[in-house]
Amino acid sequence: MTSPPDPAPDRLWAVIPAGGAGTRLWPLSRRASPKFLHDLTGSGRTLLQGTVDRLAPLVGDRVLVVTGDAHRQAVLHQLPGVAPADVVAEPSARDSMAAVGLAAALLERRDPDAVMGSFAADHVIGDEERFREVVAEAAAVARDGWLVTVGVAPTHPSTGFGYVRPGGPLAGTASRVDEFVEKPPLAVATRYVAEGLLWNAGMFVCRPSVMLDLLALSDPGFAAALRGIAADPGTLEGVWPTLPRIAVDHAVAEPAAAAGRVAVVPGSFGWDDVGDFASLLDIVGGDGDLTVLGDRGLVHGVDASGLVVPAGGRTVAVVGLDDVVVVDTGDALLVTTRARAQDVRRIVAALKEDGHDELT
Amino acid sequence: MTSPPDPAPDRLWAVIPAGGAGTRLWPLSRRASPKFLHDLTGSGRTLLQGTVDRLAPLVGDRVLVVTGDAHRQAVLHQLPGVAPADVVAEPSARDSMAAVGLAAALLERRDPDAVMGSFAADHVIGDEERFREVVAEAAAVARDGWLVTVGVAPTHPSTGFGYVRPGGPLAGTASRVDEFVEKPPLAVATRYVAEGLLWNAGMFVCRPSVMLDLLALSDPGFAAALRGIAADPGTLEGVWPTLPRIAVDHAVAEPAAAAGRVAVVPGSFGWDDVGDFASLLDIVGGDGDLTVLGDRGLVHGVDASGLVVPAGGRTVAVVGLDDVVVVDTGDALLVTTRARAQDVRRIVAALKEDGHDELT
Repeated sequence: MTSPPDPAPDRLWAVIPAGGAGTRLWPLSRRASPKFLHDLTGSGRTLLQGTVDRLAPLVGDRVLVVTGDAHRQAVLHQLPGVAPADVVAEPSARDSMAAVGLAAALLERRDPDAVMGSFAADHVIGDEERFREVVAEAAAVARDGWLVTVGVAPTHPSTGFGYVRPGGPLAGTASRVDEFVEKPPLAVATRYVAEGLLWNAGMFVCRPSVMLDLLALSDPGFAAALRGIAADPGTLEGVWPTLPRIAVDHAVAEPAAAAGRVAVVPGSFGWDDVGDFASLLDIVGGDGDLTVLGDRGLVHGVDASGLVVPAGGRTVAVVGLDDVVVVDTGDALLVTTRARAQDVRRIVAALKEDGHDELT
Repeated sequence: MTSPPDPAPDRLWAVIPAGGAGTRLWPLSRRASPKFLHDLTGSGRTLLQGTVDRLAPLVGDRVLVVTGDAHRQAVLHQLPGVAPADVVAEPSARDSMAAVGLAAALLERRDPDAVMGSFAADHVIGDEERFREVVAEAAAVARDGWLVTVGVAPTHPSTGFGYVRPGGPLAGTASRVDEFVEKPPLAVATRYVAEGLLWNAGMFVCRPSVMLDLLALSDPGFAAALRGIAADPGTLEGVWPTLPRIAVDHAVAEPAAAAGRVAVVPGSFGWDDVGDFASLLDIVGGDGDLTVLGDRGLVHGVDASGLVVPAGGRTVAVVGLDDVVVVDTGDALLVTTRARAQDVRRIVAALKEDGHDELT
């Protein structure tokens, strides 16, 4: 008798950068309580918990969360199964390269044969089974030394995401990546979709040393600094503020793609970054009636459609508005439309400008 | 030397029926706290106080308020200058004929030579000086035995008000009234305005005995019952529930007009019954930006126009909505549009139906 194959790719670690203010989801998401700490979709689990849950069958307890100092206690509280030592606190927000790079440097020393995958703490996935199959395939490709990204098959020509252009085929469903491209205007997005480009969901799977060696090619000092912190964690506080603020995409993925070092595994599993309330409405409903996230008994609509979040515990009545977004919290109320959901950040900016930091 | 003429018409009494739930102004106006008790326009005075204030130069302390039992204490609190005996409590709401008729019966005994004018507690007037001139003229005509109504010169073909059709001229600016007509559809309203009809603002000026004698022509028992209560106030509780629920317009004004007993004095003084939030917005602003009734510092708009009432003390942000109406209170929130303001009552009806009486 042979034992069944272990469904978990050998020594895959989930690196979960848990950051970002989510200003377009104000007033639910605040600096003090960013979106990954919220059960935005009404699933019963926060976005962070959902992220860990869906990766657990692949990684077991091999989870490393990198989050802001201010949120470490909340993260530990939400993830009782994760050891405190595996929740790393950034002294300040320095974009994704520092966060993911630090995780890579720590894992490079701790588990040199590992493969790591980085997955943002605030995305949602529809088909989790399919998602894990794709990640497992990406991990297998990464074992051979590639930086692997998961490319999401577009469901529409989104102008809100960057794209990945697949090149020559590799093993299985994987291909080389010819280039990463920025969020396009609609006409360009439409062409991208027609040409078979995939959404860049910001998921990167690789050996930790591959991540750091690629970084060293574009910024040797940055890679050395991260490895230095991993060798002597006592230097974190001093070194961290000197690290560049740059995304993994720009620091590593784009130059590595140009050098032919990046692979993509495509997947269709219902992915969204829950960027704004329009995106949230797409995820949870938007069937032409009022969609309620929370206590439906608090919401009364007459000729109304859109999204209502009655998180303030008060009765919310909507009369004669389609595609409206009403978000009620204890100290602040937002009224906007599905079409204008992106502009919610302008309110947050205005509140900061007016000295209302306590509301942002 | 001659002394200047007394500007107050001899012995004019202001009768102020203070009733009506104002369901189209929910959630500001509630059964427990109806609209006349609120400073809806941000003037610093409630609608009730404003009504008394603007009549004071004509009537001094000759004020009789008729209100619901539940509101008598609030009325007394808001009107410290009115004697408690002059705030009459109705045991239950029985429409305007019972309220105004009871006042007429009380005044008929108390001040037989008086003229009374009845003015709802929840209307607003722009030019108060002009208003008083018109009322003074109406009182002079009423002294001769007419039932006099004040007809407001229309500013637009409103479908929300009834109209008065003036007939043959009397003294001064007064005319006979040919008929009262109900709220018309728009095409009819447009014709009415072209034909010189006036808005029926529900203001009636007459001797108390004229009011009761006219009522006796259409409903002798009703008039006798009111006179009986005035003769023996101890019978109020027992008799009141037997009185018909009918408006002054139907019980007295329409039949009296048909009999040639009604006069109208026209006036242009900026009148509104503040029937809904669209009407409130017309009164206080509506200049294309967000109009705020309350603490402007709580409201933040981006590409937004309409009305915001931040009465819940929380920050209200509106993004990308024109002619929106947002009314925030401690326990309930309304979001609608200027065009749908009339349908707010449907929310109140739905709340009642769902057993949420505490919110209505």
